[in-house]
Amino acid sequence: MDSATESHQPATHMRTEILEQPAALRATIAALLPRVAEVAALARRARQVLFFARGTSDNAAVYGTYLIQTRTGRLASLGSPSVATAYRSRIDLSGVLAVGLSQSGRTQEIVETLAWARDCGAAVVGITNGAGSPLAEMADVALVTEAGVERAVPATKTFTCQLAALAVLALGLGAELDAGRLERLPVVIENLLDLATGPGYGIGEVVAELAGVDGLVVSARGLAYSTALEVALKIKEACYLHAMGISYADLQHGPIAVVDARTPAIIIAADSGPTLDAAVGLARRVIGAGARAYAIGGGADLAAVSSRSLAGPALPEWLAPIGLIVPGQLLTEELSRRLGIDPDSPRGLSKVTQTN
Amino acid sequence: MDSATESHQPATHMRTEILEQPAALRATIAALLPRVAEVAALARRARQVLFFARGTSDNAAVYGTYLIQTRTGRLASLGSPSVATAYRSRIDLSGVLAVGLSQSGRTQEIVETLAWARDCGAAVVGITNGAGSPLAEMADVALVTEAGVERAVPATKTFTCQLAALAVLALGLGAELDAGRLERLPVVIENLLDLATGPGYGIGEVVAELAGVDGLVVSARGLAYSTALEVALKIKEACYLHAMGISYADLQHGPIAVVDARTPAIIIAADSGPTLDAAVGLARRVIGAGARAYAIGGGADLAAVSSRSLAGPALPEWLAPIGLIVPGQLLTEELSRRLGIDPDSPRGLSKVTQTN
Repeated sequence: MDSATESHQPATHMRTEILEQPAALRATIAALLPRVAEVAALARRARQVLFFARGTSDNAAVYGTYLIQTRTGRLASLGSPSVATAYRSRIDLSGVLAVGLSQSGRTQEIVETLAWARDCGAAVVGITNGAGSPLAEMADVALVTEAGVERAVPATKTFTCQLAALAVLALGLGAELDAGRLERLPVVIENLLDLATGPGYGIGEVVAELAGVDGLVVSARGLAYSTALEVALKIKEACYLHAMGISYADLQHGPIAVVDARTPAIIIAADSGPTLDAAVGLARRVIGAGARAYAIGGGADLAAVSSRSLAGPALPEWLAPIGLIVPGQLLTEELSRRLGIDPDSPRGLSKVTQTN
Repeated sequence: MDSATESHQPATHMRTEILEQPAALRATIAALLPRVAEVAALARRARQVLFFARGTSDNAAVYGTYLIQTRTGRLASLGSPSVATAYRSRIDLSGVLAVGLSQSGRTQEIVETLAWARDCGAAVVGITNGAGSPLAEMADVALVTEAGVERAVPATKTFTCQLAALAVLALGLGAELDAGRLERLPVVIENLLDLATGPGYGIGEVVAELAGVDGLVVSARGLAYSTALEVALKIKEACYLHAMGISYADLQHGPIAVVDARTPAIIIAADSGPTLDAAVGLARRVIGAGARAYAIGGGADLAAVSSRSLAGPALPEWLAPIGLIVPGQLLTEELSRRLGIDPDSPRGLSKVTQTN
C-alpha cells in the first residue's frame, strides 16, 4: 500500500479501512476456514438457506444466495424480518438454515428474527464482526469476522469480511470450490489496491464526471449483483446521490428510462462468467440511450464498449465480488470528499442501526 | 367515475386504465375465486412458495410473499431467474410451489425459469393477463387475470389484478381470510377513484411540489412494501425521476442520508396493522431531517405528522395494497404529464420486456 501512503489524500477512516482489507481478510479467512467442518455438521439436515440482514449486511447476503444456489444445489433466499418482528407470524422453518448477518451483532431486529427462526424449527448461523455480541452468543454456529474496529459509518472491511465468511459457509454446505483460492484472496486484494491507488487507474476521472450528476444507476447480475447493490448503497450513504442498485434484467423492465446524459450507469461484472455478455449488451444500450457507462471489472470486453473502465480483480467469478467492491469503495470515498461531505460521518446515520 | 369524465384531464391510456380497475378487478375476481379449490389441490404437497418475476410483476410478488407468510404459515420468497437461465444450476425444489408472474405471459426468461423449476421438482403456477400465452400454457395451474388490453407501457390495471390473483393463491394455500372482502373490493376501489379524482383530494398539490425535486424516497413496510416498490417504479418509468422504493427499516440503515429539502419521502401504510406505528415514526424522522413527507394511507395518525396526505382505501391491511397503489398511479400519471412526458410511451421501454 505504498502508493496510498505516498498520496496526498487526507486519511479518512473510510480510506484507511478500505486499505486495511487485505489484513482484515487474512485474519478472517485464517479464523474461519478451519470451521468448515463445524458448519457442515450443522448444515447436514439443512435443505435450504434463509438469510436475514439489513443494509450492507443484506447486500452481503445477496452474494450468499447466489453462491449457495449456484454451487451447492440448495435453495437460498432472503427472509423478511418484519414477518417475525412486526407480524409475529409462525412459519414452518424445519430443514432451514437461518443465517443472520449484522456487523455489530447488536441489531436487535436481526437477533429477534433469528430467535423466532429457531422457534420455527431452523438451525441458526450468525455472521458478525462482534465477538461476544448477542448475535454471536445466540447462534448455533457463529462465524465471527476479524475485521477489527471500523470507525467510518459506511462499512467497508466488515462487508468484504462478511463475503469471505459466506464463502466459508458455502464450503460448509458442500460447495465444490477451491478453498486455496480463498486463502490467496488477500494477496489479490492487496494487488488490486496497489493498482487502484496508483497512477493511471482512473478513479479520479470517473469521480470528476460523477460530481456533476443528479443520480446514477449501478447494475450487475448474478454473483456480482451484490456488488452493485453495495456500491449504490455506499454512494447513497456517503455522497447523498440517488444511486439505484439494480440487476441488468430488472433495469430493462422499466427503470432504464431514467438513464440519460445526466444519469450515467456504473456496470459491474467479473472478468468471466455467464453474465458477462449481458453486461456488454447493457453497456451498449446505456450508451445508445445517450448516457455514459462506467465499467468496474468485466475485462477487455466490457472496457471496450464503456465510456471509462476500472479494472477488476484477478479472481474467479465466485470470488470476484470480494474484489469488485474495492474500486467502488475508493470511488465513493473520493466522490464524498469532492462533494464536501465527510465520508466518515454522513448525516442522519450512526454505526449501530436499530430499526423498527 | 363521473368526476373523472367531467375533469379536463387529457385521457391518456394510462389514466383510462387506472379508471378501469374496478371493472378489471370485478372480472378477475369473478374468474379466479371459483378456482381456490384447484389451487388448494396443487398446493397440498407444497411446503413453501417461490416467486419468479421482473419489474411490476416482481413488485406484485413481494405482496405475495408477505401475504402468504403472514397468513398461511408457509415460507414464501423471491427466486433469482439468473440461477436458472444464466447459471443453469440444478437446485432441489421438491415441495416448492413455484409461481411465475408475467403480465404478457411472454417474458421468455420467466417461462424458461418456471420450466427449470419444474425440472427441479417444483409444482408450477402461472399468474398472467395473457390467456393462451406460453406462461399460461405451461403452468400446472394458470390464474389468468381479466384486466383486458393494457395500452400504456406503465402497468396499472394488470398490477392490481395480479394482486387479486395472489389473494386467491393465498386462499388456496389455506389463508384464513374473508373471501367476501375480496368480492367487495371493486366497489371500494371505485369509491377511492371517485374520491381521488374529485375535488379536494390533494394529488394536484403533491404533484406541483414533486415537479421540482431531483428525486424522492418511497417507503413502506410489510404488506404495503410492495406498494412502495411499485409507486417508485412507476415514477422512474413515467417521470424519469430517481425514486427509491425501500422499506422503513432498510431506509434507516443508510439511505436516510439522501433525504433533505430537495428530496422528499412518500410514506405508504394501511390505515391499521402492525407497521403503522413505524410509518408514523418514519414520517417524524423525515420531517426532522428537513424534508417533506407525503402520506398515502395511514389514516389520521400518519396524516397528522405528514406534510400532505392522500387518503387510502377503506380496506383491511391484507387487501390495502390493492387500493394504496391507486393514488400512486394517479399521482404518477399527472406528474408525468406535468413534466412534459407522455406517460403512455416512456422513452426506452416497450410493453413486452425480454431480458437476458
